[in-house]
Amino acid sequence: VKDYKVIIVHGGGSFGHYWSVKYDMHTKPLPYPSEGVSIVHESMIKLNHMVIEKFLSHELKPFSVPPSSYVFNNLPCKDRILDLVSMTRKNDLIPVTYGDVVHTSDGNFSILSGDTIMNLLSTHLKPRYSIFTTGVDGIYDKLDNGGNLIPNISVSGGGNVLSHQPAIDNERMPFDVTGGMKRKMEESLKIVKEGIPVYLVNGFHPERLLDILNNRDFVGTCMRMEQ
Amino acid sequence: VKDYKVIIVHGGGSFGHYWSVKYDMHTKPLPYPSEGVSIVHESMIKLNHMVIEKFLSHELKPFSVPPSSYVFNNLPCKDRILDLVSMTRKNDLIPVTYGDVVHTSDGNFSILSGDTIMNLLSTHLKPRYSIFTTGVDGIYDKLDNGGNLIPNISVSGGGNVLSHQPAIDNERMPFDVTGGMKRKMEESLKIVKEGIPVYLVNGFHPERLLDILNNRDFVGTCMRMEQ
Repeated sequence: VKDYKVIIVHGGGSFGHYWSVKYDMHTKPLPYPSEGVSIVHESMIKLNHMVIEKFLSHELKPFSVPPSSYVFNNLPCKDRILDLVSMTRKNDLIPVTYGDVVHTSDGNFSILSGDTIMNLLSTHLKPRYSIFTTGVDGIYDKLDNGGNLIPNISVSGGGNVLSHQPAIDNERMPFDVTGGMKRKMEESLKIVKEGIPVYLVNGFHPERLLDILNNRDFVGTCMRMEQ
Repeated sequence: VKDYKVIIVHGGGSFGHYWSVKYDMHTKPLPYPSEGVSIVHESMIKLNHMVIEKFLSHELKPFSVPPSSYVFNNLPCKDRILDLVSMTRKNDLIPVTYGDVVHTSDGNFSILSGDTIMNLLSTHLKPRYSIFTTGVDGIYDKLDNGGNLIPNISVSGGGNVLSHQPAIDNERMPFDVTGGMKRKMEESLKIVKEGIPVYLVNGFHPERLLDILNNRDFVGTCMRMEQ
């Protein structure tokens, strides 16, 4: 497992998401209130800082990479995204990037979610795996008690989900404003269509990540193109 | 004073500087040890976070801008630097940027000091003033007790200091690794040569900044081109 090169992406959770709801930054059109921009941005840096400190405390070598260093005017800058790879290759650093509010040249701001970043980095960098961790075990076929985890989802060339139809209800996640499971599914589909398998697993069970890396049976959902 | 548009630049102080000495990142050639890169970077984000929180506590609207969002491969990106201005014009946000260790495309890293950033932003943005705050009152004509503060320094077209020869001794500031007063003078000279007056004042007396902005007598050093 040590030989894997990893890039970490995190979202806003109770930090950025909470404040962007409070300042109405997802339902209102641009421009966002500048106080909101200021506070959402700072809350994300604070969360990133906590993540980085956790990595340092495990003697890992994280390197925080703000999205403003590789997304300009809402467009990904390929050269700068590739820099993340040279960072891992040459220095055994672990780039840690995150969803954030990013500035554009017209003086406006735009919210770039961690899920969008997952898509953006995956399609440019073509990793072996793209793994989303959430607070649930994966994608379920029913929302209520009695729903079953869908271990595999096959995607056709057109991007349609072939096997089970997953059940998604974002109305139940009022604070997960940048998209919740639905957004994760949408971004995952785009990644899968690039030929990269996507896993959705429960982040509270980190051993499941190791199961994936070691090709063992795992609890979670794997999405890939139909064979 | 409220009408002034301000961009804040801070250095590493006892955060980044301390660690970059500890990891020998100023005396050794590249590549820096990755543990040092990781820790210096994180210490600067931590310091920036503290600065931002202080601004927020005064109900100002800071917006942290990491140098990696406008310096690529050690070259300033003019468009991205101009974004800092649209940020202040359109949103009354205060961009807050800082010296840091920045990554380059070959997987290497480079230390970009706050003083260099002052020069880089000043020459691209042509501000009305460029003000360096330090822990001393300004530039002195002698290092020891009995030295006098030099209120004005005239600079000739060739960049030579005309009036007094300032006394600079960086040997006394072992931790101020990215250059101390000498570096501040060097960067100031470059800024002055662009026609922008540079002030060096004591940051422990913030009222002196107001004196400058209000065109009053002030305690500090002003450097400008000879008239």
